[in-house]
Amino acid sequence: MSSSTSQTQNPQLRKDPISNRWVIFSPARSKRPTDFKSKSPSNPNPNTTCPFCIGNEHQCAPEIFRVPPDYPNWKIRVIQNLYPALSRDLVDPVGATSGSVLDGFGFHDVVIETPVHSVQLCDLSRDEIGEVFVAYTKRIRELVKRISIKYVQVFKNHGAAAGASMTHSHSQMIAMPVIPPTVSARLGSMKDFYDETGKCCVCEIQREDLLIDSSTYFFSLVPYAASFPFEIWIVPRYHSAHFHELDAEKAVDLGGLLKQMLRKISLQLNDPPFNFMIHTSPLHGDESELAYTHWFIQIVPQLIGTAGFELATGCYINPVFPEDAAKVLKEVNVPE
Amino acid sequence: MSSSTSQTQNPQLRKDPISNRWVIFSPARSKRPTDFKSKSPSNPNPNTTCPFCIGNEHQCAPEIFRVPPDYPNWKIRVIQNLYPALSRDLVDPVGATSGSVLDGFGFHDVVIETPVHSVQLCDLSRDEIGEVFVAYTKRIRELVKRISIKYVQVFKNHGAAAGASMTHSHSQMIAMPVIPPTVSARLGSMKDFYDETGKCCVCEIQREDLLIDSSTYFFSLVPYAASFPFEIWIVPRYHSAHFHELDAEKAVDLGGLLKQMLRKISLQLNDPPFNFMIHTSPLHGDESELAYTHWFIQIVPQLIGTAGFELATGCYINPVFPEDAAKVLKEVNVPE
Repeated sequence: MSSSTSQTQNPQLRKDPISNRWVIFSPARSKRPTDFKSKSPSNPNPNTTCPFCIGNEHQCAPEIFRVPPDYPNWKIRVIQNLYPALSRDLVDPVGATSGSVLDGFGFHDVVIETPVHSVQLCDLSRDEIGEVFVAYTKRIRELVKRISIKYVQVFKNHGAAAGASMTHSHSQMIAMPVIPPTVSARLGSMKDFYDETGKCCVCEIQREDLLIDSSTYFFSLVPYAASFPFEIWIVPRYHSAHFHELDAEKAVDLGGLLKQMLRKISLQLNDPPFNFMIHTSPLHGDESELAYTHWFIQIVPQLIGTAGFELATGCYINPVFPEDAAKVLKEVNVPE
Repeated sequence: MSSSTSQTQNPQLRKDPISNRWVIFSPARSKRPTDFKSKSPSNPNPNTTCPFCIGNEHQCAPEIFRVPPDYPNWKIRVIQNLYPALSRDLVDPVGATSGSVLDGFGFHDVVIETPVHSVQLCDLSRDEIGEVFVAYTKRIRELVKRISIKYVQVFKNHGAAAGASMTHSHSQMIAMPVIPPTVSARLGSMKDFYDETGKCCVCEIQREDLLIDSSTYFFSLVPYAASFPFEIWIVPRYHSAHFHELDAEKAVDLGGLLKQMLRKISLQLNDPPFNFMIHTSPLHGDESELAYTHWFIQIVPQLIGTAGFELATGCYINPVFPEDAAKVLKEVNVPE
């Protein structure tokens, strides 16, 4: 490793200002950052009976919409999850969240990103990935109308080790009647930062040696206190609280940068399983939240397991310093 | 399932008063609780070159102490971790934790629970497991003397899928210069409960249909808002903030109940990988914390993976209602 900060190889603790969490960086546990290449590449086995493939629509739960609309040769389908974590069939609680028990009302949708089984998200063009982002925003704008839905989590599990049960490229959206704990905690520390400095802590994020790439409206970096080796954030350059306010032009720009990041981790880390998560702000929140909340995307290659320590403490042990990970991801060139 | 609460099979959200976290119970995703039997039993492969085996002590990092002391035929060894997450060789920061970066000072120890490779923790007698608990408390009492150590996390990873890199039965202790996020959050919600009710929320924990077993000083239950299927807590009946105040008599009693719980999950769930974690209170905390903090042990069989949703939200999706899990664990008889 040549980065000055990590030459010492001593462990270090860093606190992330956005989550307000300490992370342990423990380089003694690794040799070189690239030793973390995945041993279980995520390449899916083609499945002739896959319900997500074009022509098998009847095997799926009901469709919500498709892109283009009403067209047999669809490019994207947004459907209900056949095994939903929350149920749309319960009575809408219309905002009652006191006490310690609630009916599991909510929505759990699946976004099929391509009709073709063998195509992965990073194989799509920037325009096509842009259309996937636009499909997310369209669905969230429908969900916003439900006053009882407090938060919508968009996420993708790629590869069995990252939790994907279907190999056909897809992502998921869970619309929840409560604000989840990580989101409340993030909101709290973003507010603290704003109250102290008058600034949004994501707008002020430290870049320098952590920057990987940038596009017209976004930049990508390894966060200063990344919880996981080669974790990447894609951050809007412009201040924006809610992901679902993304327009089509920015969606395509974001599609290009996401494609680049996914190809970089695939090349440098041997096509690892990964998760990506869109961190946005609660729906129907206080107006004042808009000043200090700022959405971003977190990409986590699944290279090391978590165990009892992380479960117990919420504190992660990361064997790769972020500046070293950023270097590895910056130096690789991926063709358009 | 015959339990009245889960007959409807509708999802439900429950908030745990101790962590103040919502958990999604989603029974539609499972058939019967016992469908969760582990597909990857954790049984270790004997390893003739295991450094944790008796006779191979020279292959290990330095010993801290053994039980019995100075005896070649040891029963338990507490040693330094060869690949520590935190380093004891850095300068002790003596309590400075402001800012967002800290040297990684701390202690990362390993407790070898038996000299014999093929023996698992649940194969030991209650007295022997009691001695392991006494070894933990002895080591923590040494660490308490360091004013810069704010928290000691004791945990066990059993089986590769639960994060164990060595198959020889062992547990770990990480002594940290900061209070980790989950501990701070737990302290906060325990304080809120105390401020509202004047009572300790662990003393007031709901049992009834969630109870599995009890001993003289402890009881075991599936918590009302368990994050994981078949998660078990072992809770002292008496109010106590710090695990390391456990005496030898209570340690043996605890050893018996832990043994019973481990054998129950092994029998009912096909010897699953598991983690156990001792949740205690920070060291050198405010005296007032003693009134509302109460240590306990959490046992988590690793039966389902976590993925993007859990990573993003800190909210878990549990497919087994706690009252159903408690029934399955209660009904099985394990020989002493």
